[in-house]
Amino acid sequence: MPDSAAPPVPAAAHELLARWADIAALHDAGAVLGWDQETVMPPKGQPGRGRVLSALAGLAHEKLTDPALAAAIEAAAAVAEPGSELAAQVREARRAVTRATAVPGDLARAKAEATSAALVTWQRARAEDDLAVFAPDLRRVIDLTMQEADAYVAAGIAATRYDALLDEFEPGMTEAMVAPLLADLRDELVGIVHAAVGRGVAVDESAVTGPFPVAGQEAFGREVATAMGYDFEAGRLDASAHPFTTGFGPGDVRITWRWADDDLRPGLYGVMHEAGHALYEQGLPPAWAGTPMGGAVSLGVHESQSRLWENLVGRSEAFWRWAHPRFVAHFPDRAGTTVDAIHPALHTVRPSLIRVEADEATYNLHIVARFEIERALFGGSLGVDDLRDAWDDTYEALLGVRPPSAADGVLQDIHWSMGAFGYFPTYTLGNLLAAQLFEAAGRELGDLDALMAAGDFPELLGWLRRNVHGHASRYPAPELVERATGAPLGADAFLRHLRATVEAVYGAA
Amino acid sequence: MPDSAAPPVPAAAHELLARWADIAALHDAGAVLGWDQETVMPPKGQPGRGRVLSALAGLAHEKLTDPALAAAIEAAAAVAEPGSELAAQVREARRAVTRATAVPGDLARAKAEATSAALVTWQRARAEDDLAVFAPDLRRVIDLTMQEADAYVAAGIAATRYDALLDEFEPGMTEAMVAPLLADLRDELVGIVHAAVGRGVAVDESAVTGPFPVAGQEAFGREVATAMGYDFEAGRLDASAHPFTTGFGPGDVRITWRWADDDLRPGLYGVMHEAGHALYEQGLPPAWAGTPMGGAVSLGVHESQSRLWENLVGRSEAFWRWAHPRFVAHFPDRAGTTVDAIHPALHTVRPSLIRVEADEATYNLHIVARFEIERALFGGSLGVDDLRDAWDDTYEALLGVRPPSAADGVLQDIHWSMGAFGYFPTYTLGNLLAAQLFEAAGRELGDLDALMAAGDFPELLGWLRRNVHGHASRYPAPELVERATGAPLGADAFLRHLRATVEAVYGAA
Repeated sequence: MPDSAAPPVPAAAHELLARWADIAALHDAGAVLGWDQETVMPPKGQPGRGRVLSALAGLAHEKLTDPALAAAIEAAAAVAEPGSELAAQVREARRAVTRATAVPGDLARAKAEATSAALVTWQRARAEDDLAVFAPDLRRVIDLTMQEADAYVAAGIAATRYDALLDEFEPGMTEAMVAPLLADLRDELVGIVHAAVGRGVAVDESAVTGPFPVAGQEAFGREVATAMGYDFEAGRLDASAHPFTTGFGPGDVRITWRWADDDLRPGLYGVMHEAGHALYEQGLPPAWAGTPMGGAVSLGVHESQSRLWENLVGRSEAFWRWAHPRFVAHFPDRAGTTVDAIHPALHTVRPSLIRVEADEATYNLHIVARFEIERALFGGSLGVDDLRDAWDDTYEALLGVRPPSAADGVLQDIHWSMGAFGYFPTYTLGNLLAAQLFEAAGRELGDLDALMAAGDFPELLGWLRRNVHGHASRYPAPELVERATGAPLGADAFLRHLRATVEAVYGAA
Repeated sequence: MPDSAAPPVPAAAHELLARWADIAALHDAGAVLGWDQETVMPPKGQPGRGRVLSALAGLAHEKLTDPALAAAIEAAAAVAEPGSELAAQVREARRAVTRATAVPGDLARAKAEATSAALVTWQRARAEDDLAVFAPDLRRVIDLTMQEADAYVAAGIAATRYDALLDEFEPGMTEAMVAPLLADLRDELVGIVHAAVGRGVAVDESAVTGPFPVAGQEAFGREVATAMGYDFEAGRLDASAHPFTTGFGPGDVRITWRWADDDLRPGLYGVMHEAGHALYEQGLPPAWAGTPMGGAVSLGVHESQSRLWENLVGRSEAFWRWAHPRFVAHFPDRAGTTVDAIHPALHTVRPSLIRVEADEATYNLHIVARFEIERALFGGSLGVDDLRDAWDDTYEALLGVRPPSAADGVLQDIHWSMGAFGYFPTYTLGNLLAAQLFEAAGRELGDLDALMAAGDFPELLGWLRRNVHGHASRYPAPELVERATGAPLGADAFLRHLRATVEAVYGAA
């Protein structure tokens, strides 16, 4: 664990921390209201909720751009020893303030209005399977996001437009770092997927398909999450239209799920995925709650935690040796299943159209497609008029499938309607990091398969707590990765894991 | 309905309303977080929740005491026609600002933190039946509330500490007005209760006692609340330790309940009570949401709405002529009951320990007890060390019963843990007003018994919407009462109602 109980905060930092506590409280309040809205709010509460959330966001922005906060940051900076915790607090506070002040209020308001409208037209366009319905609003969101990115570049926050976009979600990561990583990965993945598909193996999925009563799915999911270390005394599991994790300090981190009635996988792996996110949030140092460096360091690191538990743990044979008797206890009619029958069904390789339903081998190709298209959009070489063709061509080239409709293609994700460009790469960075962390944990803890088969998840969680969760944003993400794994982020561990898995199911090349 | 769609707001009032919207948003956010805390929050969320609520309260206080708001109020005042809506906005805004500026920000934050902690220790103390568990937090809450009251007195808002407490919940009401009203009522009630008990009639309660499965209780409660006009699309019903209603604008007004497994009455009348409160909140003019006069005018008026539905409607013979077949549908084993058997069981006169389970005749004696104890606590003649004895002695004197435990005595109410001293008298004011409003509604609508027996609750609700709910805080409570009933608030209607009911069950004196 970090030096969280170490030297007391200098008096010069008190004002910074006091002001930050208010900003954090406004964010936490907004997060509680967001959870409420997605899970329990009655329908007629929507207009009032929109007003309250918008007011809270405005108040947080007002607090973040208050010159007195900037002065408090500089006062703290003046006494911060290089490399100290306080220096990290100053770094994180400065970053947030610089971002908030870089964008003129008019532009921020225009983007908020444009995305609010675009969310509605995106939903309609998807329902009507017609990109033209969404195109004018999408054009406006892209234009405003470009202006925003240009403002960040002008403020010296990023070197290029796409860097500015990435920086919101993955601080310190640049287009120049992501592009070669994804290009290499793309070539390897196309080869792996092509080889697996070419082998003509038909995987029997019947062990995890067919009727699974929801009560059993929920009970099994709760048992697995508890075994992982998710603390239900500091969280909840509820149903929602789209699964998510939201935390308001380490003492209250909630997850949601949805399920399929005839397939175990969406429910179980949804719960493990969100519980993985939640373990990160529950493991943040309580002493740092509400301070600039108290939160998760980046979306990529967050995603590494969900993917590690979902894929590296949850889809492994070793995990199922532990899980199988529990699975059968919840689904007695599945007593005839075996781990050998279940494991292959968790690793089908099947190029498909929809990102959120993609398997582990093809998933990152969906991300590569979005990355290439976003770079073209923001580099000026692609316009919204040609977006559908570009999307379909990219899918055909990467995955060998061509969307028969816009709804199953370019209109499938909510992100662009929200102006969240530069977000998609964090999913792949998370996948790569998950494997790299898992290997590093294995080097220290020994045989992870043996641990998992014994249900000794606290060992693995302890390693993640010491090496990831407990550091919150104490170190920038690239430094955290090197400290935890001994190397910069790369694709090797992920590719080793993927090749081994695919080989186990589809046979050697 | 009021003139809510009438003349547009003058430009001079825009800034007042814009600033008020932020303050209202902070209050609404706090209310959502409060509901969450009472119903769904995991236990380890408490410390973080305390911090967030405290920060929101501090921010609201900061906004309320911003000199720019005071200037905006005066700018609006300068153009407000006497008696206009804008004049009412100015009056309500001024009142809130004057109260807020009287209390230093540090004190407001300290009280928010202390009450958040006290809520938890109160719950534990009640579970463990040990006042000592709660005493330190209670002492701190009393101390901070005294400091707050003294600040109001110093600012000239109130003449005495207890006036300052009352003013928060029942603006314009003073200890000097409440004390004689309660003293008179006390004498009348002691007489009525004494006579009823002395008659030696044993009321058969078996029609509403014995097993009542909770699923049936909830379904029956929902059916009754819906018939009253409570809109479940703009609300929810959940379980909580102590029933309450909370609203975040008219589109989201939530109620909670608890129940007894072997008695219909606590659950049913808890739901009707809270639904009565909720009808007021759901009936507030949406156009005024988030403005100074947009909320309920006082707690006494609020309580009149809950009591009207719970007691004047829900315990009447006429209501049960409508309700009985529905009751039997939910509890088929009660098919042998009759309205004639049920009605007396809703009007037993029986001095008892628990306020929220008290009958209509003795209820206000519970309030008199709390009023006397609070005056002693805040007058300095009673300390927390002697609180249990004082409570037990008062109960023995007023009701002839002595609590065998703290849980059934001094620890029974949530209010003091929340710092809500001066709140209890509003229950009695509400009881008196409920009867006075019900008589007035009958003068306009004709035979209310016939309406209720026919299930024509919308008629009664419509009268309340026109005469109470739709006015929000447009008129001060005393003026609202005179407009609605043609007379100032008094005890006559309540005593007429009570004597008639007791006579029906226990026979004439």
